[in-house]
Amino acid sequence: MTLPLRVAIAGLGTVGSGLLELIAANAEPIAARCGRPIVVCAISARDRHKDRGVPHGGIAWYDDAETMAQQAQCDVVVELIGGVDGIARRVVDAAIARGKHVVTANKALLAHSGVALAHAAEARGVVLAYEAAVAGGIPIIKLLREGLAANRAQRVYGILNGTCNFILTNMRRTGRPFGEVLAEAQKLGYAEADPSFDVDGIDAAHKLAILAAVAFGTEVDFAGIHVEGIRDVGALDIQFAGELGYRIKLLGLARMTEQGLEQRVHPCMVPLETPIAHVEDVFNAVVVEGDFVGRVVSEGRGAGAGPTASAVAADLMDIARGRLAMTFAVPAKKLTRTPAAPMDRHRGAYYIRLMVRDRPGVIADVTAALRDEQVSLESMLQRGRSPDEMVPVVLTTHDTEEAAMRRALSRIEALDAVLEPPRLIRIEAL
Amino acid sequence: MTLPLRVAIAGLGTVGSGLLELIAANAEPIAARCGRPIVVCAISARDRHKDRGVPHGGIAWYDDAETMAQQAQCDVVVELIGGVDGIARRVVDAAIARGKHVVTANKALLAHSGVALAHAAEARGVVLAYEAAVAGGIPIIKLLREGLAANRAQRVYGILNGTCNFILTNMRRTGRPFGEVLAEAQKLGYAEADPSFDVDGIDAAHKLAILAAVAFGTEVDFAGIHVEGIRDVGALDIQFAGELGYRIKLLGLARMTEQGLEQRVHPCMVPLETPIAHVEDVFNAVVVEGDFVGRVVSEGRGAGAGPTASAVAADLMDIARGRLAMTFAVPAKKLTRTPAAPMDRHRGAYYIRLMVRDRPGVIADVTAALRDEQVSLESMLQRGRSPDEMVPVVLTTHDTEEAAMRRALSRIEALDAVLEPPRLIRIEAL
Repeated sequence: MTLPLRVAIAGLGTVGSGLLELIAANAEPIAARCGRPIVVCAISARDRHKDRGVPHGGIAWYDDAETMAQQAQCDVVVELIGGVDGIARRVVDAAIARGKHVVTANKALLAHSGVALAHAAEARGVVLAYEAAVAGGIPIIKLLREGLAANRAQRVYGILNGTCNFILTNMRRTGRPFGEVLAEAQKLGYAEADPSFDVDGIDAAHKLAILAAVAFGTEVDFAGIHVEGIRDVGALDIQFAGELGYRIKLLGLARMTEQGLEQRVHPCMVPLETPIAHVEDVFNAVVVEGDFVGRVVSEGRGAGAGPTASAVAADLMDIARGRLAMTFAVPAKKLTRTPAAPMDRHRGAYYIRLMVRDRPGVIADVTAALRDEQVSLESMLQRGRSPDEMVPVVLTTHDTEEAAMRRALSRIEALDAVLEPPRLIRIEAL
Repeated sequence: MTLPLRVAIAGLGTVGSGLLELIAANAEPIAARCGRPIVVCAISARDRHKDRGVPHGGIAWYDDAETMAQQAQCDVVVELIGGVDGIARRVVDAAIARGKHVVTANKALLAHSGVALAHAAEARGVVLAYEAAVAGGIPIIKLLREGLAANRAQRVYGILNGTCNFILTNMRRTGRPFGEVLAEAQKLGYAEADPSFDVDGIDAAHKLAILAAVAFGTEVDFAGIHVEGIRDVGALDIQFAGELGYRIKLLGLARMTEQGLEQRVHPCMVPLETPIAHVEDVFNAVVVEGDFVGRVVSEGRGAGAGPTASAVAADLMDIARGRLAMTFAVPAKKLTRTPAAPMDRHRGAYYIRLMVRDRPGVIADVTAALRDEQVSLESMLQRGRSPDEMVPVVLTTHDTEEAAMRRALSRIEALDAVLEPPRLIRIEAL
């Protein structure tokens, strides 16, 4: 076991460069903990001559990552290119076909093709590891697969997208609207030029699909996730949330219900007394509720070179040590295929914000619409008066079925005095 | 690998009974995740006929745990008796001598004899696992040893004793003094009849000694820990902490300094904006700061049947899967022997509360004493006036060396107008 573990790295962006740096900087403790060194034997990236701030002289260079996966003398291929198909997929396929272990940070690939890849990896007797794909530096996959593995998971949820959390945190701190804070996040490098992947909830949904598979032993079901992003969260909503004792967070939540596997990504009202309400800025957090352990919360940086490299390196160390885990904690053929719980049947409490013309009878019309759909009101708040002008009215409900809530909102939206589409944010019991 | 893993359990108290229950209730997912079942083949406890709410008929019974460790047909011995020497130690020694893996929740044993036991276990090629010994259900040992193992730990700290956290939380919520809240905790079963082990910081120190060894690759050094408990924390201090933007928490902290390994357990002023300030009641939390991953916080239940059984079972599952880890992450012979950093050389900010006779010149005398020891004052607060009566005065300092602070406090305590020994609480930069 003193032969080094030889690693080929495909992709030298932020994470790839960070990984090179980590493997060099911490070579000594890594070797002590693994009983053998980890060495980078080959790398591939688009531009060989770009200065990445990390020396890579003496390491075999491949212009084409797929060729590297097919030919490099290595034990593990690390895929850090990204994307669902194209070159990233070909690199992973080629590595598995050759009987090489694969470590990847590619959440989209796992969310869309995780089960097929798990079957392929198990058939070849290699590991497909992806700690870095979910919640960056937080070792949540290991936690679910090993540390909490004696539990039946009752619910798994978390703040899975740092960009959204940064935006929501700064909307609250500054009182400014979504668009302005997004622009600032883009300037700081916390949001992409095209931010839709993050702010529309897709990235969080990729991660949730992976978490749910590991937690519940189900096949990854990205298509079964109900996804809403944060574009419609208004500065007013953030302000009312505070008054009502909540923070607004984009959560991904998964649990097994009688109707099937419920997977949701959307903005949530989170009670201030829960730990997750205090997870701010670009930090991520994942909460696992297990039948014996109760609630375990893990918080850390969800992105960035250092945290992601830390997670990739942990996967490499497991392989170096011979701790070869199953992709989704159980053999791929034992993963169950569970129907998605229909969102219409979801039950929970709701926050509704209306913009109405301030005149007598409006509230009576609104509450009548709720009554007609058997939606039970918990509170109603109209701050200030401006006769015949537009004013916000905020309602919160008791537990209600989503379908009834939607029908009531259609009735409300049709009222003359309701001037904008109602905003709905689910209140989570955490 | 389809032969079951056979487990012998020594001790059927809360945790032992919880473990029996867990192994029965979750046999199916455990077997799916391990590739083989875990079965309890032998148990030992003092009273065979006591009703523990869990059936154990059909399992071999031993009246003497040491005999069980010597004779039971098993793969692993689980030690849940507790205590540094006596029967717990003999059980562990006997199991290792026979080449059986050992899983234990015994923090005192690990803190005092961990290195010797690690040598013995490695010499026999068996595992000595103890996830349940630190922070109950939080898989913090696995996190340090594997999930974050690619990092050099810069600092590890946490809320390691649920009894103290419960008491401090309830002192804050109710404004009542230590003694009353302790009595309530005893009534609720959160504190022992003799609470000294918990409230004097010993239990937290045991856990810190183990954490530090895994995090820094050093030999366990329980004797090198500076330990203070929470008996001297006054209701007044809790109130002032709130006014100054802090919560008081009993923390265990470890980091490597130029003077050696610094290990401290004592009440701390924790800034309200840090995650750990919001960890309340009996919950535990551990923070790991790694050079690449940054700050990772893990929170969960630190005690109780379910969480502790969850941790013991996770260790068993690792063994069942063949994931055989080194006791302290590296071979015992590679652990370094690092001198303890002297507490006198500790630098940090301080909160000082004095009870003084309210008369002119007192503050001048106090601040002169601080000046003479080069202690730089950050703030001074005297709430209210009652001439010639006893009033509290609160001071906070900038970063200061502990020895200078102690000298200044001796001078202050000697002042006529200072009516009670000064209270000191360290303000932690987290």
